[in-house]
Amino acid sequence: MDNLSRFDSPEQLRRACRSGEFTLPTAGHAAGRIQANMMIVPKEHAFDFLLFCQRNPKPCPLVEVLGPGEVEPACAPGASIATDLPGYRIYRDGEFVEERVEVASLWRGDLVTFLIGCSFSFESQVQAAGVPLRHIDQRRNVAMYRTNIACTPAGIFSGEMVVSMRPVKSRDVAKAVEISARLPIAHGAPVHIGNPAALGVADIMRPEYGDAVEILDDEVPMFWACGVTPQWVAQRSKLPFCITHAPGKMFVTDLVG
Amino acid sequence: MDNLSRFDSPEQLRRACRSGEFTLPTAGHAAGRIQANMMIVPKEHAFDFLLFCQRNPKPCPLVEVLGPGEVEPACAPGASIATDLPGYRIYRDGEFVEERVEVASLWRGDLVTFLIGCSFSFESQVQAAGVPLRHIDQRRNVAMYRTNIACTPAGIFSGEMVVSMRPVKSRDVAKAVEISARLPIAHGAPVHIGNPAALGVADIMRPEYGDAVEILDDEVPMFWACGVTPQWVAQRSKLPFCITHAPGKMFVTDLVG
Repeated sequence: MDNLSRFDSPEQLRRACRSGEFTLPTAGHAAGRIQANMMIVPKEHAFDFLLFCQRNPKPCPLVEVLGPGEVEPACAPGASIATDLPGYRIYRDGEFVEERVEVASLWRGDLVTFLIGCSFSFESQVQAAGVPLRHIDQRRNVAMYRTNIACTPAGIFSGEMVVSMRPVKSRDVAKAVEISARLPIAHGAPVHIGNPAALGVADIMRPEYGDAVEILDDEVPMFWACGVTPQWVAQRSKLPFCITHAPGKMFVTDLVG
Repeated sequence: MDNLSRFDSPEQLRRACRSGEFTLPTAGHAAGRIQANMMIVPKEHAFDFLLFCQRNPKPCPLVEVLGPGEVEPACAPGASIATDLPGYRIYRDGEFVEERVEVASLWRGDLVTFLIGCSFSFESQVQAAGVPLRHIDQRRNVAMYRTNIACTPAGIFSGEMVVSMRPVKSRDVAKAVEISARLPIAHGAPVHIGNPAALGVADIMRPEYGDAVEILDDEVPMFWACGVTPQWVAQRSKLPFCITHAPGKMFVTDLVG
């Protein structure tokens, strides 16, 4: 199967990642299955990071935490998180070092994997309710910004929340709040609606991550906590070592949601 | 103020604990404030226990986790968890060793405190909705049972769930489910309704913890996950050292809920 085909089965998608066949972003594949951001830290820092997630559930809603050294998650029996994502990023001392298609060759018995909810399930429910999402219609990545909202620190981890922004028509804002509020695993209700400057976002057309998206006159910018937050916090905290998914290249679970 | 008076202020109650004036169970005091089960473990086991809570949110809904050595929780500024509970229990190698009125003299820089939701807030909302709860009307402790429901293990922690039981009239069962389901911090919806034998409870009149309570002909036994679970699991797992609250002698937070 080539990279342009759409995978319905999460298991087939993961197998294609493992063989190296599939190396693209996972949005739009395995519809209805929960996809997850991934963060892997050494055991030495795992308590601090788990505590960071517990204290900051909006940016870091936990889907699953694996035991030290474990690679097979309960949310995807038979899978390996060391090979079954389309892309990985390695950070050392908070600096991005390299992007890879597997981390099995780097694997260690002390690595603890965190799977963190992402916004895909919320986006598909918002669209199903008749609320268009421009970045999806334009096949772009969502626009993401670093904010002035301090996360609650935990041990070595501290830093500001990263948010994603979606322009929504005024009449649909309440609907988008209601739908997302019901999905805490997909970051829950927005953290902010309407005023980018109040978040410390100087230029809405210059996101720090992802692609800029136009905001029309009858639209309000809505901001949700974003799963990129732990990557930014790991950088800010100069975490000695971690592995994350590459942007948009999520771990696709078997979970329905 | 003597032990028979009722404290409205959580801060005054905690101060009376600290001075040794108040050493009784906390039920009925500081109405409307969240009370918490407490579990304190050495940092060495804190990741495993935090993971246990994350994997078992029904028995172990986290109100707050303090950093290593910290005694002042964010949910009660000015308080100290080492002195502000009416009673503490010490366990070594899974065995109960002693009950104390403070643990400040045992305190160490590596101790990590977990505050875990309890059923009091759910009970007051159920009563406010017109559903009587017999153990409260009879001023007894709730009946609690060890079950055959295995918790999801995490590191050294494994064991069966402890549940609390409340007899509810058939016409009120759905109402009690709805109210508790909205309160995940108070253990959420019941884990079981109606058949004690299916949980491995041989004799409903012989609870392992708390006091037995009569079940009338038009009543159904409802079972909720219970905050005593981590104490039982610590015993089962022969945890080298931990401190817990004494039964019914909870930490009273400033949180409203």
